[in-house]
Amino acid sequence: MLDMQRTARRLESFVEGEWRAGEGEGKKLAHAGTGETHAIISSEGIDFKAALEWGREVGGTGLRRLTIHERALMLKDIGLRLMEMKDEFHAESLATGATPKDAWPDIDGGIGTMLTFASKARREMFNTRVLTEGPVEQLSRDGSFVGQHILMPLRGIAIHINAFNFPVWGMLEKISPALIAGMPCIVKPASQTAYVTELVVRRMLEMNILPEGALQLICGGVGDMLDHVTGQDAVTFTGSASTGQMLRTHPAIVANSTRFTMEADSLNATILGPDAGPDTPEFDLFVKEVAREMTAKAGQKCTAIRRVLVPSQFEDAVIKALSDRLAGTAIGLPDDKNARMGALASRGDRDDVRAKIADIAREAEIVFGDPSQVQVVSGDAEKGAFMSPVLLRCADPMSAIAPHEVEAFGPVATVMAYDDIDQAVELARKGKGSLVSSVFTNDPDVAAQTVLGMASFHGRVLIGNRDSAKSSTGHGSPLAPLVHGGPGRAGGGEEMGGIRGVKHFMQRTAIQGSPRLLSAVTGAWIEGAPHQTGEHPFRKSLAELRIGDQIVTEAREITREDVEHFAHFTGDTFYAHMDSDSAKANPFFEDRVAHGYLIASFAAGLFVHPDPGPVLANYGVDNLRFLVPVYFGDTLQVRLTCRHINPRENAIYGEVRWDCRVTNQKDEVVAQYDVLTMVAKTWPLEEDA
Amino acid sequence: MLDMQRTARRLESFVEGEWRAGEGEGKKLAHAGTGETHAIISSEGIDFKAALEWGREVGGTGLRRLTIHERALMLKDIGLRLMEMKDEFHAESLATGATPKDAWPDIDGGIGTMLTFASKARREMFNTRVLTEGPVEQLSRDGSFVGQHILMPLRGIAIHINAFNFPVWGMLEKISPALIAGMPCIVKPASQTAYVTELVVRRMLEMNILPEGALQLICGGVGDMLDHVTGQDAVTFTGSASTGQMLRTHPAIVANSTRFTMEADSLNATILGPDAGPDTPEFDLFVKEVAREMTAKAGQKCTAIRRVLVPSQFEDAVIKALSDRLAGTAIGLPDDKNARMGALASRGDRDDVRAKIADIAREAEIVFGDPSQVQVVSGDAEKGAFMSPVLLRCADPMSAIAPHEVEAFGPVATVMAYDDIDQAVELARKGKGSLVSSVFTNDPDVAAQTVLGMASFHGRVLIGNRDSAKSSTGHGSPLAPLVHGGPGRAGGGEEMGGIRGVKHFMQRTAIQGSPRLLSAVTGAWIEGAPHQTGEHPFRKSLAELRIGDQIVTEAREITREDVEHFAHFTGDTFYAHMDSDSAKANPFFEDRVAHGYLIASFAAGLFVHPDPGPVLANYGVDNLRFLVPVYFGDTLQVRLTCRHINPRENAIYGEVRWDCRVTNQKDEVVAQYDVLTMVAKTWPLEEDA
Repeated sequence: MLDMQRTARRLESFVEGEWRAGEGEGKKLAHAGTGETHAIISSEGIDFKAALEWGREVGGTGLRRLTIHERALMLKDIGLRLMEMKDEFHAESLATGATPKDAWPDIDGGIGTMLTFASKARREMFNTRVLTEGPVEQLSRDGSFVGQHILMPLRGIAIHINAFNFPVWGMLEKISPALIAGMPCIVKPASQTAYVTELVVRRMLEMNILPEGALQLICGGVGDMLDHVTGQDAVTFTGSASTGQMLRTHPAIVANSTRFTMEADSLNATILGPDAGPDTPEFDLFVKEVAREMTAKAGQKCTAIRRVLVPSQFEDAVIKALSDRLAGTAIGLPDDKNARMGALASRGDRDDVRAKIADIAREAEIVFGDPSQVQVVSGDAEKGAFMSPVLLRCADPMSAIAPHEVEAFGPVATVMAYDDIDQAVELARKGKGSLVSSVFTNDPDVAAQTVLGMASFHGRVLIGNRDSAKSSTGHGSPLAPLVHGGPGRAGGGEEMGGIRGVKHFMQRTAIQGSPRLLSAVTGAWIEGAPHQTGEHPFRKSLAELRIGDQIVTEAREITREDVEHFAHFTGDTFYAHMDSDSAKANPFFEDRVAHGYLIASFAAGLFVHPDPGPVLANYGVDNLRFLVPVYFGDTLQVRLTCRHINPRENAIYGEVRWDCRVTNQKDEVVAQYDVLTMVAKTWPLEEDA
Repeated sequence: MLDMQRTARRLESFVEGEWRAGEGEGKKLAHAGTGETHAIISSEGIDFKAALEWGREVGGTGLRRLTIHERALMLKDIGLRLMEMKDEFHAESLATGATPKDAWPDIDGGIGTMLTFASKARREMFNTRVLTEGPVEQLSRDGSFVGQHILMPLRGIAIHINAFNFPVWGMLEKISPALIAGMPCIVKPASQTAYVTELVVRRMLEMNILPEGALQLICGGVGDMLDHVTGQDAVTFTGSASTGQMLRTHPAIVANSTRFTMEADSLNATILGPDAGPDTPEFDLFVKEVAREMTAKAGQKCTAIRRVLVPSQFEDAVIKALSDRLAGTAIGLPDDKNARMGALASRGDRDDVRAKIADIAREAEIVFGDPSQVQVVSGDAEKGAFMSPVLLRCADPMSAIAPHEVEAFGPVATVMAYDDIDQAVELARKGKGSLVSSVFTNDPDVAAQTVLGMASFHGRVLIGNRDSAKSSTGHGSPLAPLVHGGPGRAGGGEEMGGIRGVKHFMQRTAIQGSPRLLSAVTGAWIEGAPHQTGEHPFRKSLAELRIGDQIVTEAREITREDVEHFAHFTGDTFYAHMDSDSAKANPFFEDRVAHGYLIASFAAGLFVHPDPGPVLANYGVDNLRFLVPVYFGDTLQVRLTCRHINPRENAIYGEVRWDCRVTNQKDEVVAQYDVLTMVAKTWPLEEDA
């Protein structure tokens, strides 16, 4: 482990395959708790243009050679190893002012996000290099011209410009989806806490798991990097709105329509429901959550609660309960076990927070805390960037401006009273777009009314109540499966959200053509594309099976006796199968019809090959539609075609999706569905694959 | 019908519920064919801020009151009536220089796009005001904390700034998805051809179908309109890259992170495959398509082919065939039946095209046509904005710059030879992002290699070959179900693409909470949310049925006899059901297992209510997964819960989606799926609903 506390470490950048120290004196980065110089940073002398080109060429080529599952498994491997090293990261993180509990969402949460992406990608995406999206669209009546959307990795580099408050999570939540998409990354952490990011990147690169060029790191300023972006690059930014707007209008980004995503701090609100009075569990949950959001990371979170909207009748009770709770928050050095709240990241940050409080206080009164004074249980209140939590109250929130627009990026929030739910929603909207809002209520109507009223102004809305009190991850925590980013003031960006986050680093392209040629592009069989008959496809392992392998079965009549027998055997004596008059009265049927499940069962009887073979199991059915009623005496025939083959990494089998089409004697399609099977990679089975 | 040909019409804007003429002298708009003043346009004196506010307030409220299907039906109604009036629009369109054939994609194509959106929305979206997207995400192990994405209309106004070349389609392809999303629109057509848009909007508003405020029109400049945008508005722009970049960096758009979508002209390429020599159908298709793209609308289409990439060995043949075809293109007045190609939209446009040709000609030679001379079959070659098609040839396309970057927005294209497919792909990419590319080949490998190589630089790629020769809609036609918009030079925008296009006008929000409260927000039952038992839910019409209505069935044992009986009855004697040794050798099973279809059939037998009633039909099954094998002697029980109710407009029934969970005696879920039924709105059936 590095001896963090003693010597100021000179951070290095990793570019073009090498660790390089920047030139010049560099900038000194102070330990947030002690004020001593903890690290020195400089990116002077780095050839940014060359770094971008190296990433695009070397990293892009290496990543695109891998399949999506191979990329995901790489991240799983890295994530598991990082988790083993996390103590080292936590130790380094103390210098940022964050307590170990504060650092958990950053370090453990960041690695967990990487692992979630690795797992979701393998569960929800095919093991391929070309992603298809949505159905095949019929573009002509005769089926000879069809379309489908595909997604391919952008052929540029993803430039991630991150905020100081999440040096680990901020990096990992962005590189994970980009790398799975097949896009190389260059990470530029905020200087103030770059030492944590640098350490994690160093450990990741030492593992030698990523292809060369897939990941680069800039410690220090970005220099002229953005002058060299192209239309195939993607720039993501998390930080202040002013910096974000500057980057968004950078001439090269504008001229090249470079994909740009921004997450800006926002004036996130929380609402206490009118049902959630002081005697309810929701009231207690609300007070705890507001206090937690104010003090975690000393309030330096872009998702922190800034606006506390409460029913007028509970305003005093909320202020009292919150003040009591904040008064019990011990403030001190991050590594002091007695401290509940650490320091801000720097004294400069503290100066800024004090100034912003003064702005807000023009339209609100301070009801708890003194911005200029703080009691600490350890450390030096002046040398360290400590400050007291500050709670304000705005008496006229419908006309006030500053409490809705001025963000004090520290342990600061403003209480505002509302008269009814419409007003609560209107107050929430006055933030002009936020990353997240929350509402604490146990009343379904309050939940529906507030959430639907606020939703279009927020990227995420959390509902807190007694049922999820223990399991809720809380207002402030973005989660990998859910979208992070909000409209308006929050920057208009969208990150994560599960596989959506991967697609943000890919280009969606509509491909049109004949089924044969489109199928050659997507690697999936399409109606109208060529098929092969011969050996029964259930006799073929993945080594032999090809898309388009097809069997057309014998025909089988469905008789009245079949239907009645099936009805009594299964117990499904639904009137449309059993009673002619009732069936005829039904707007869909002309007479008694066969059961849908009977059609599917007979179909399987027609297409299945009975002998032991490489088809191991039918694990499901997708998109089954019964399109035309089957009457007694109708004759069914099945056409089963191999549509898609998805070999699994690290397994002796893979998924095969079969297009199953059941037709009647008039060649009408009576049922259409996908049959899902597990098929062995080889036959006989190789147990040790 | 207006007497278009005689008097110059003064165009009006429709704002705040009134038609208003702009102040001042206005700008004269010349008839493209004759050069005479056709219309006068001015938006002076219009209060743009008030118009935006009126749209947001009045229009937004009215639209959000409707369900998605109600909005879609409104568009269907409008579309059908517009189609009846199309002759009037075609007559007015002649002044733009477009021949009736040229105007077809604009007028008929635009109305068709509106009708396609109206139809897709009803087929593919629920009849609701709150859209859900993707699965419910389990956010805690105990199921008490879950998440789901919803989409709600943005609460602002959609500002559509359109290009001159598609005055009808450009408007309709943008307002259709926006109105379905529930967002009011304000349309600002390009002045040069605004008279066509104005006429169509006038007819639409006369129908009195749209809610008040849903649609406004600005004829003339946008004045200070963009100064007043908010974070809930959306701005779409189609036109030149330079104007688009100016709008994208407008201070209010940047400060509010206003959603901004841009479609810019691009240097679209087409590739002739190396297999497609002069004797192949693909060669002929290619030549026809290039000539058509050069001459349709006199080449004034943002999707037109500008770069013609051909195998070196066929370069001469292509130039000869193309030149022959272009030489046969009669040029004249748009209403002259002998004319194949009309005029450019204005003489100013022609001046610009001539200048751009001169730029390109520094790195290429003109091989057909004279930019300064044209033979016309009707009209006055100088007074009308006529010009000859011009074909250039670039000898060194790998090093040339202008042919890849300078766009002559007229009947102009450049032929470039390539050596192999990698080089063809590289040349295509030199456009730095386009709306569309195409490749003409009959070889699946050529199709896959070129398409996958180019895809990330294009929003759409068309493959042309003999199979789709008659059905293909061609290189230049965006289609409602497919994405329109490309990366880089094309502006980085994305429009249409089916329901995706609707979502562009909505905010995606992740909602987290307990199943009960989340279910109250989305209107769909979620695992863990409350349920009601009592009367069998199959006895309830839509008037009585509620989400969460549930039946838990009796239990039923599956015996060896059942499985063997089912196997012989259906013919499905798959080894895993019949032979113990083979089943045990299978990695998924410990012994012989019941058929999946038997499980689903028995499940139906357990949950179905046999008597005639409001459940009319089982029309399908979704997401069926067999999760745990069922062995002989296992006992199955079914829990069926009403998950989602989707009443259809204009029908006596609606779709009901049931959550179906089959468990065994150990309470393990052995199968999980959605059962899809049609259920009557009332029972007994009302035939006249």
